[in-house]
Amino acid sequence: MKIISKLTRVALLVLPTLFTTEAMAQELKKPTLEDLIPGGETYRFTENLYGLQWWGDTCIKPEMDSLLAVNPKTGKETLLVTRDKINRALKQENLGKINHLQGVRLPWAEKTQILLTLPRSYVVYDWKADKVIANRAVPNKAGNKDYNTTSGNVAYTLSNNLYVNDHAVTNEPEGIVCGKSVHRNEFGIHKGTFWSPGGDLLAFYRMDESMVTQYPLVDITARVGELNNVRYPMAGMTSHKVTVGIYNPETRETVYLKAGDPTDRYFTNISWAPDAGSLYLIELNRDQNHAKLCQYNAATGELMATLFEETHPKYVEPQHPIVFLPWDNTKFIYQSQRDGFNHLYLYDTDGKLIKQLTDGKWLVTDILGFNTRRKEVIFNAAGGLGSNNFAVNITTGKRSLPFSINTTTDGVHRGELSASGTYIIDNYSAPKTPRKIDIIDTKTFKTINLFTAEDPFKGFIMPNIEVGTIKAADGVTDLYYRLIKPADFNPDKKYPVIIYVYGGPHAQMVTGGWQNGVRGWDIYMANKGYIMFTLDNRGSSNRGLEFENATFRHLGIKEGEDQVKGAEFLKSLPYVDGNRIGVHGWSYGGHMTTALMLRYPDIFKVGVAGGPVIDWGYYEIMYGERYMDTPQSNPEGYSQSNLKNIAGNLKGHLLLIHDDHDDTCVPQHTLSFMKACVDARTYPDLFIYPTHKHNVAGRDRVHLHEKITRYFEEHL
Amino acid sequence: MKIISKLTRVALLVLPTLFTTEAMAQELKKPTLEDLIPGGETYRFTENLYGLQWWGDTCIKPEMDSLLAVNPKTGKETLLVTRDKINRALKQENLGKINHLQGVRLPWAEKTQILLTLPRSYVVYDWKADKVIANRAVPNKAGNKDYNTTSGNVAYTLSNNLYVNDHAVTNEPEGIVCGKSVHRNEFGIHKGTFWSPGGDLLAFYRMDESMVTQYPLVDITARVGELNNVRYPMAGMTSHKVTVGIYNPETRETVYLKAGDPTDRYFTNISWAPDAGSLYLIELNRDQNHAKLCQYNAATGELMATLFEETHPKYVEPQHPIVFLPWDNTKFIYQSQRDGFNHLYLYDTDGKLIKQLTDGKWLVTDILGFNTRRKEVIFNAAGGLGSNNFAVNITTGKRSLPFSINTTTDGVHRGELSASGTYIIDNYSAPKTPRKIDIIDTKTFKTINLFTAEDPFKGFIMPNIEVGTIKAADGVTDLYYRLIKPADFNPDKKYPVIIYVYGGPHAQMVTGGWQNGVRGWDIYMANKGYIMFTLDNRGSSNRGLEFENATFRHLGIKEGEDQVKGAEFLKSLPYVDGNRIGVHGWSYGGHMTTALMLRYPDIFKVGVAGGPVIDWGYYEIMYGERYMDTPQSNPEGYSQSNLKNIAGNLKGHLLLIHDDHDDTCVPQHTLSFMKACVDARTYPDLFIYPTHKHNVAGRDRVHLHEKITRYFEEHL
Repeated sequence: MKIISKLTRVALLVLPTLFTTEAMAQELKKPTLEDLIPGGETYRFTENLYGLQWWGDTCIKPEMDSLLAVNPKTGKETLLVTRDKINRALKQENLGKINHLQGVRLPWAEKTQILLTLPRSYVVYDWKADKVIANRAVPNKAGNKDYNTTSGNVAYTLSNNLYVNDHAVTNEPEGIVCGKSVHRNEFGIHKGTFWSPGGDLLAFYRMDESMVTQYPLVDITARVGELNNVRYPMAGMTSHKVTVGIYNPETRETVYLKAGDPTDRYFTNISWAPDAGSLYLIELNRDQNHAKLCQYNAATGELMATLFEETHPKYVEPQHPIVFLPWDNTKFIYQSQRDGFNHLYLYDTDGKLIKQLTDGKWLVTDILGFNTRRKEVIFNAAGGLGSNNFAVNITTGKRSLPFSINTTTDGVHRGELSASGTYIIDNYSAPKTPRKIDIIDTKTFKTINLFTAEDPFKGFIMPNIEVGTIKAADGVTDLYYRLIKPADFNPDKKYPVIIYVYGGPHAQMVTGGWQNGVRGWDIYMANKGYIMFTLDNRGSSNRGLEFENATFRHLGIKEGEDQVKGAEFLKSLPYVDGNRIGVHGWSYGGHMTTALMLRYPDIFKVGVAGGPVIDWGYYEIMYGERYMDTPQSNPEGYSQSNLKNIAGNLKGHLLLIHDDHDDTCVPQHTLSFMKACVDARTYPDLFIYPTHKHNVAGRDRVHLHEKITRYFEEHL
Repeated sequence: MKIISKLTRVALLVLPTLFTTEAMAQELKKPTLEDLIPGGETYRFTENLYGLQWWGDTCIKPEMDSLLAVNPKTGKETLLVTRDKINRALKQENLGKINHLQGVRLPWAEKTQILLTLPRSYVVYDWKADKVIANRAVPNKAGNKDYNTTSGNVAYTLSNNLYVNDHAVTNEPEGIVCGKSVHRNEFGIHKGTFWSPGGDLLAFYRMDESMVTQYPLVDITARVGELNNVRYPMAGMTSHKVTVGIYNPETRETVYLKAGDPTDRYFTNISWAPDAGSLYLIELNRDQNHAKLCQYNAATGELMATLFEETHPKYVEPQHPIVFLPWDNTKFIYQSQRDGFNHLYLYDTDGKLIKQLTDGKWLVTDILGFNTRRKEVIFNAAGGLGSNNFAVNITTGKRSLPFSINTTTDGVHRGELSASGTYIIDNYSAPKTPRKIDIIDTKTFKTINLFTAEDPFKGFIMPNIEVGTIKAADGVTDLYYRLIKPADFNPDKKYPVIIYVYGGPHAQMVTGGWQNGVRGWDIYMANKGYIMFTLDNRGSSNRGLEFENATFRHLGIKEGEDQVKGAEFLKSLPYVDGNRIGVHGWSYGGHMTTALMLRYPDIFKVGVAGGPVIDWGYYEIMYGERYMDTPQSNPEGYSQSNLKNIAGNLKGHLLLIHDDHDDTCVPQHTLSFMKACVDARTYPDLFIYPTHKHNVAGRDRVHLHEKITRYFEEHL
């Protein structure tokens, strides 16, 4: 167990406390839930610069009413155009108006043109000429709009069908969905249309889900409760079938890839060859343990090549399309976790591995772009609690220092690269830094600060946040924790503890970002006199494949053992009341909360589980089977993880909260758990938020946290 | 305020207490919920004689294995036949066997024959001849079986269609239901088939509900949550359309009554003319304020006559078919609340009123039959807390004393009359009498006791029950209450109180029956140290029409004002802690509980509302519009009664419980109230019992009451 910079922090915190006069103390106030929870009426968000982007190598800084160009060398700002001027030009063409400039785009480095996204059209405006250059109408109800800035073609969906410009690409009945994201947004998929580089061909997904069982959600706000069906393929059951089409707007013809029977297959990570002659896909079997990089002829749909394959005894999880080198159409970068961490690999179009570009016990999170002149790929990488932006030279393999060398390594960085790769916009936060935005020269690391956000809770009483590590239940692995103490912490007192848990893959709760990733509610509860604790157990993200897949086929078990290590650590602290340990989490964290309450009823006294997975058999195929296989092939695992089977263990107070329109984790989870508890004669509590989906968003989020707070206050 | 025999009871109770030794006290134990709640593993029900009936003027007393005849004059018992003997005869014909004799019927006074209802057939067995006389098969899945003992014809339903013997009477698509109860069992309707006296014609209901909106209930026990739609016509919306057919099994032809457009009309209280030539119906408009007694030709379906009409500015509620005098086919008895209480009226078939047969500030609940020799109609009547069986001479109008003159008037009696009307089986209970069953001579009142049940809680610690009256909020009307004190009641202590409330029409909670109608949970809570209180407010039953319809168009308001009078009475008692008043009720009582918590937040601290009506707009047409008219014609009333509109008033702890298959009071009530509370930022609690309907029955009923108990224990 290691406390990071604990001594420094304690010293800093003790001093002001000692010298605080009563008058000073009275001036400070505790933030309310309305201040702390997104959706609250006085929510104190961290300020940002919205719409910041590159126009070639010039940084564009949109404000409400003015569009400013920032010279990345000097930081000097120049006014490009005002909103008034744009709106006057729009009015002349009867195109409506824009209310701010933070949604504009400048995709054309060589032109003085702005792309405006209006509700019913895409408009190109030239600020030099002060006129509308182009206007592409889209229907009011269009969804999934995808405008290609090269060709000016626009793809969109109406209901379940795909359109390009004014023409219907598909004409499918209900149950077949075209042009939308498929496979429930797993495998990095978040959209259903993919324009070729020149914007003259459109690859798109077509998903036949007519054979998928419908889960009935009920809208109680209708005059008479109304059915809202959602096609929800549950683990082990019949899944949808996905195919990929390529539409040519000029000929209005569609070619479907001749990929064979799509049953129980995933078609992921679509990318175009630079010459638009072929399309690359990473195809995956339903077991998710065998991926193939396939190339299809864009004109005929024929399979041209299977470049290479990748297998793993547990699962492979392709999440990144291949990316071609801008200076060499025969080479591309492929991302893989094959050495245990997500890294970059350089391949040629014959499928031959040229070299591994990055390696180490850290992982690439994102390719940001290239510096063609220097032959560098620029990427974001994470390790431990932080992330940063780096370059690696493709020829020499030499990796740069993190660009933002003057921030601590535990900061969390996002980057946006300029056209040439010469500059990067670095948007970052660190435990004591709410947000900073710099422009950094990717060679000299010369930095210009564009923006520094104020501490949104300046002048408020705030608790103290510590971060450290403990050993996992395997006795070997380091796990990061975050521990929050009330501002008036007294080491001689005994405090109750609430553990906030997520625990599932694809997420890290303890970060090196602002306030170490703490949530507003944690601050609120710490201010009320609770020690708040969070531990990223095995199975969570940014720690490599083995750390994540340790939980394979038995979700919740090892995660729970690690959380118990956290509870033991807490009990070892002299200021913790070990008889008053509560736990709260949502979704995977709702599963963890329920599981901990049931498996360790003598440790955890009170739990609030939101939108929990109760039975992985009710979860969807893509995510669920990756980690659990199917109920048919892993009956013991499903049985062991099924919390209904241990409903009789409940001793403490457990509140389950579910949304009645939860289409991620359907209400059947929680309701069937209620039945299991009734059958087993145990007594959980329940609340349902009508009209919400897989969490409670907007204004009601404050209600939710007041509800959760009351439950702990009443019972812990 | 008047305490009925309070002094007597106190005297009786104080004496044993004074002389109880410690050893004796230790022997007594408190009943558990398993003892007290129906469905509990050790539920202590009051014993009964099941299947007791008349065979002509001989009383038949079935036991598990023997069928006994009881001489009503002497009480002498004779064995008629054994189960073994019957089963041997059944076996010979391969008809299966019967497991007890308590379901047999002896409908033929003149024959030594028994009707046996087997799962797949009706069997007539002659115990003298020791053989099966007749056997009428019915399909295994048949529902709503209606066997005519004169003709031997049987009607039944399969899915939504009606069958007679082996033939389909109707062949309607889903959405049209035949041969089943209609109008949601209002207007005294509880079945859909009506055999003519000779059993050769069958009148039946056909209900087209295809135009009624479907309410989606969800079965979470299916592999994937499954839709269970129920056609639920909500107040003010489109209702179903009912017609009446008459089927002739011989010709296999059906004639539908030519009653005109059935839209927004109710066809109620079907009865046959003694000669089977015509059918009588009481027809009602959708407003339910105008009833007509109509006669239709059974052969042609033509309307023959509208005998008379009845109107009321609030509502008329026909609940009893007309009954012809056995000795005069031209005269019948009609029941009406027209003088403010339900009484018997003698009419002739021209629709002319001959005379009012009963009157007084009490009401007829049921016609039991006739004594043809004496020209008497024999009926059950209720008044105050009790009920009893009487006769009235149709010629002289002279009413008999209650038959069971030797029991207190606050007993609750049910009667079954022998064929000639000479004897009655009187099954009754009284506050200190769990059950007695007597045979009474209806002229001499000579009584033979057949059965006296043991106190099912003999040897248990039981609380003390008091009954009395307070004035309603109108300052005039007497309301009955029941007050329960712990067995170890100490007048110097301050007790918390829980009010159990129903409050709606058609029910009386405080009765003169066993333990004054107390529920097991009330006993349980009194034993835990709560004062339990129930008050039958205005709007409840057995007190006459004006008492009931005082609440018209504003349900819940006057009822609540009366309940507040109850709370004020409680607060005036020196041993009541007026700051700890809780309230619990189900259905209408769930509405009352929620309404009291919201309208009187400073009086009621904790409430548990089960299956509550929240918004009368979500309740069904038949019941809802009778008392509330439509949302269109009574917008203020609906708005005033809509608890969502006052969700922001919630101060105390309120738990709402709903069943996910509640098709009486759909889950939309409770879920929309949750939304209203979230919107108003108040904090009710919620629980849902999956798979249950409008209450929690069976074994889970114990869980329910433990859940309710815990809520009061935690919060009151």
